[in-house]
Amino acid sequence: MCTAIKYDNCFGRNLDLWCRYDTSVVITRVGEISNKYPIMGMATVINDYPLYFEGMNDRGLAMAGLNFPGNAVYYPLDKSKKNLAPYELIPYIIGNFVSIDEAAEELKGVNVLNRPFSENTPLSPLHWMISDKNGSIVLESTEDGLKIYTNPHNVLTNNPPFDIQSFNLNNYKRLSSRSAAGDYSLGMGALGLPGDLSSMSRFVRAAFYTKNSPAGLGANQLFHLLYSVAMPKGSVMTPEGREEYTQYTCCCDLENNKYYYTEYDNLNVKCIKFNDR
Amino acid sequence: MCTAIKYDNCFGRNLDLWCRYDTSVVITRVGEISNKYPIMGMATVINDYPLYFEGMNDRGLAMAGLNFPGNAVYYPLDKSKKNLAPYELIPYIIGNFVSIDEAAEELKGVNVLNRPFSENTPLSPLHWMISDKNGSIVLESTEDGLKIYTNPHNVLTNNPPFDIQSFNLNNYKRLSSRSAAGDYSLGMGALGLPGDLSSMSRFVRAAFYTKNSPAGLGANQLFHLLYSVAMPKGSVMTPEGREEYTQYTCCCDLENNKYYYTEYDNLNVKCIKFNDR
Amino acid sequence: MCTAIKYDNCFGRNLDLWCRYDTSVVITRVGEISNKYPIMGMATVINDYPLYFEGMNDRGLAMAGLNFPGNAVYYPLDKSKKNLAPYELIPYIIGNFVSIDEAAEELKGVNVLNRPFSENTPLSPLHWMISDKNGSIVLESTEDGLKIYTNPHNVLTNNPPFDIQSFNLNNYKRLSSRSAAGDYSLGMGALGLPGDLSSMSRFVRAAFYTKNSPAGLGANQLFHLLYSVAMPKGSVMTPEGREEYTQYTCCCDLENNKYYYTEYDNLNVKCIKFNDR
Amino acid sequence: MCTAIKYDNCFGRNLDLWCRYDTSVVITRVGEISNKYPIMGMATVINDYPLYFEGMNDRGLAMAGLNFPGNAVYYPLDKSKKNLAPYELIPYIIGNFVSIDEAAEELKGVNVLNRPFSENTPLSPLHWMISDKNGSIVLESTEDGLKIYTNPHNVLTNNPPFDIQSFNLNNYKRLSSRSAAGDYSLGMGALGLPGDLSSMSRFVRAAFYTKNSPAGLGANQLFHLLYSVAMPKGSVMTPEGREEYTQYTCCCDLENNKYYYTEYDNLNVKCIKFNDR
Repeated sequence: MCTAIKYDNCFGRNLDLWCRYDTSVVITRVGEISNKYPIMGMATVINDYPLYFEGMNDRGLAMAGLNFPGNAVYYPLDKSKKNLAPYELIPYIIGNFVSIDEAAEELKGVNVLNRPFSENTPLSPLHWMISDKNGSIVLESTEDGLKIYTNPHNVLTNNPPFDIQSFNLNNYKRLSSRSAAGDYSLGMGALGLPGDLSSMSRFVRAAFYTKNSPAGLGANQLFHLLYSVAMPKGSVMTPEGREEYTQYTCCCDLENNKYYYTEYDNLNVKCIKFNDR
Repeated sequence: MCTAIKYDNCFGRNLDLWCRYDTSVVITRVGEISNKYPIMGMATVINDYPLYFEGMNDRGLAMAGLNFPGNAVYYPLDKSKKNLAPYELIPYIIGNFVSIDEAAEELKGVNVLNRPFSENTPLSPLHWMISDKNGSIVLESTEDGLKIYTNPHNVLTNNPPFDIQSFNLNNYKRLSSRSAAGDYSLGMGALGLPGDLSSMSRFVRAAFYTKNSPAGLGANQLFHLLYSVAMPKGSVMTPEGREEYTQYTCCCDLENNKYYYTEYDNLNVKCIKFNDR
Repeated sequence: MCTAIKYDNCFGRNLDLWCRYDTSVVITRVGEISNKYPIMGMATVINDYPLYFEGMNDRGLAMAGLNFPGNAVYYPLDKSKKNLAPYELIPYIIGNFVSIDEAAEELKGVNVLNRPFSENTPLSPLHWMISDKNGSIVLESTEDGLKIYTNPHNVLTNNPPFDIQSFNLNNYKRLSSRSAAGDYSLGMGALGLPGDLSSMSRFVRAAFYTKNSPAGLGANQLFHLLYSVAMPKGSVMTPEGREEYTQYTCCCDLENNKYYYTEYDNLNVKCIKFNDR
Repeated sequence: MCTAIKYDNCFGRNLDLWCRYDTSVVITRVGEISNKYPIMGMATVINDYPLYFEGMNDRGLAMAGLNFPGNAVYYPLDKSKKNLAPYELIPYIIGNFVSIDEAAEELKGVNVLNRPFSENTPLSPLHWMISDKNGSIVLESTEDGLKIYTNPHNVLTNNPPFDIQSFNLNNYKRLSSRSAAGDYSLGMGALGLPGDLSSMSRFVRAAFYTKNSPAGLGANQLFHLLYSVAMPKGSVMTPEGREEYTQYTCCCDLENNKYYYTEYDNLNVKCIKFNDR
């Protein structure tokens, strides 16, 4: 489970998982995997191939994959389309395009292929948020086929599909960050906002906080937004009793081409630039 | 508005305000203000006197003042009691006592005096949480007189008074961090947890996350807990349109005598020790 | 568990119980139990004494007892007060007074006596709502002594005490019966209203519906209000698996001196007048 | 806005509207409108044609139309299908079929025609619930075409479409009618149930109460269920300030071929049989 937010000139995400992956910030130079633009993001590298959880290029386009269990459906080879396995989507899109408009146009011809990375690396059920400085889109491959949504909320979490998540915001449109005279506490204008860490509740909360954020505060503000929907250890347990928590929080500064991140056990903010490695 | 949490061997708080004070980490040496134990905490210093927002001593006792508007009532001089103005309470208690039991015993004889610090520094309406490694108590001076509560939740926010906040937790005792098989998302065991930033909702959320935290994770975990109830800029506005936000988050490590803090605009964790200044 | 509502010129209640009593509408003539005014209401008669669940007199004063477990505290004989056992309160007050002002004045001198009706009829833990056409008061005898509250909400349910129930309404004061353009449904102005049948939720819902009721619709409207917080069979079960449900709903027309009621298994509205029996 | 519930051998509905229609219980004899089975239900009769809000036949099949604004889409003539205008659907289905299975089979070949009843009677945006003693189905004609859903909840309200309403029940599956020892009130097992009168909240509440109803209580229980989601006057206002309320509540006893109903201003239960008129 995860949360992605695009705010201001920044795109970021929490990676919420109960299992650990061996991850690091990986930079893929131009041409390494047929990419026109360099890519930077958190990845697990297997057989020299970077499996990106999310990434940015140096032209201001970023993309993240988020868990979508039970709803993601991938398809057999379709020769009339560009076939891309789920793990190829991030490097292909941010490796070759510079805006959400370009990406959306390209994705119309894509078939998300049901081909695992390897025998030992099964397919992850995912959907994706893609953002540039001006906005966001969402990509879902479900039993109804491929869906490309404009995402005016600039937020993505997990289940249910994006259209139901968006409809659900109707139930919260009366909420306000503004208090009224006579309230016993500030903040009462948002009474009714859900506070648990399920994917629908994180979507509502992230959308509310993002919508109410003043413009221009950059990466620092995005960390605060992401921390509002992060999972402290112990707060979310699987039915089997495993602990899901926010393993890292990152922020792609799409204006200045910097990748910031913090880890659960080290809250100091690290910053990586394209020419750092 | 603020949140204080005691977790594990640590005591911390968010300072949520819409106005800025000139604050810094202040260490008061033994004897400077008739104190037996040195004091460290965030304070505004006026006329050489440290007005502590919260503080710890080197024996493992910590105390924080939190906003309590409309409910705090202070009293005229009562010669049968030890009279202490609100701003004197923190340095007196943590300057002279080493446990919540000692503090509770002493507070029974205290009258909270309605004497402002100066003409230009009016009385703040406050209540207090006091914690050692083993537990917490709450001090409230209201129209019903002085109340000293044992605080098994180890959480304090603002209005309403502590007894109503505690009763309100009954409405959330069914919530669980554990998900069930068949859920469309992890985290659904806590559906119903309030997500807004009013004082009652922060109390419920902080109590839930704290109760579910695994033991032994120390200051790092406490920062995660406090970030769960922190206020991003824009999320809370006064009726007049001023922005309330979490100006700093701190954590007193009562085992190792360290004071950690982060500021809104600088999320790197700073650490101060008693002999640092 | 029960709900009482005063609306317009009418006072009514749901009797919600999991055990059955042998009840009927009982009229107590003037003087039968030292009463100046005749009394009519639902009662269980034991040894010729009417144990009223609620009642009205012919001057427009009505009173109901509602379950208050864990909070009701009754006291030993206090010779400086008028001592009345819980079961004597209704016939005494509506048998001798004509307005909530008169009743409130008298109640200041009352001690609620811890004397059961008989060996086989233990004390019920109760609190009371008393209404005339102009308003309502609440009477609670707790460990803090006797409390008489003005009740501007004209609603009473059960736990917690009335002051906490009243404070809790602050959390719902933004709710409105009015929809906004663009809503996908009418009624969305009240999103956040609690829908379960616990005593706090019934209090909020009954207060909201009563406040929004147009004036002048009389007994018929009060039945609709009470049905909104009634318990269908199966909806509320005790921890032991017993079924609590709304055994009867009644409405005292304080203008026309009529007592209307319906029973769970017979929803036709019966009407009794003072000279009927 | 309306609510339909199938419980036990009974099918009923609340008619919630802010405008008044001239309605009465109408019986259509066999053959009057090419129907094999007689029909009984509440209708407005225009030019001798019965515009049924809902109806039952004498073989145990019942059907109701409920408001579905913004989502209902009707289509032009499609010669490959059986074309039926919205107002023809109820008399056609319950006039010619005896079970939900038969109805579902027939409906697969139906096109819902965008032909108004008359110039002065524009098309109402509707969807339908059809029930026999054994279960329920839902019919929706939307921009995605005709959808026929099995309805295991036996409840229908209004927006959003049935699939989203059904998904939403996931968020309430932890709720229980059972209380726990230590609760301050019975009913707390259902804390979190929404209490407003919007269509999503009524769906959740009606589904919860229906699921928890003991079997075998018949029409009386169904009235209690419907009253739990009925609209008292004043509780729901349109953006223009018009009062929506429950104009009538009816119950079709599919076992005994009786039609029961109550009206807002007359809560006595009326009963009509097929040979009554």
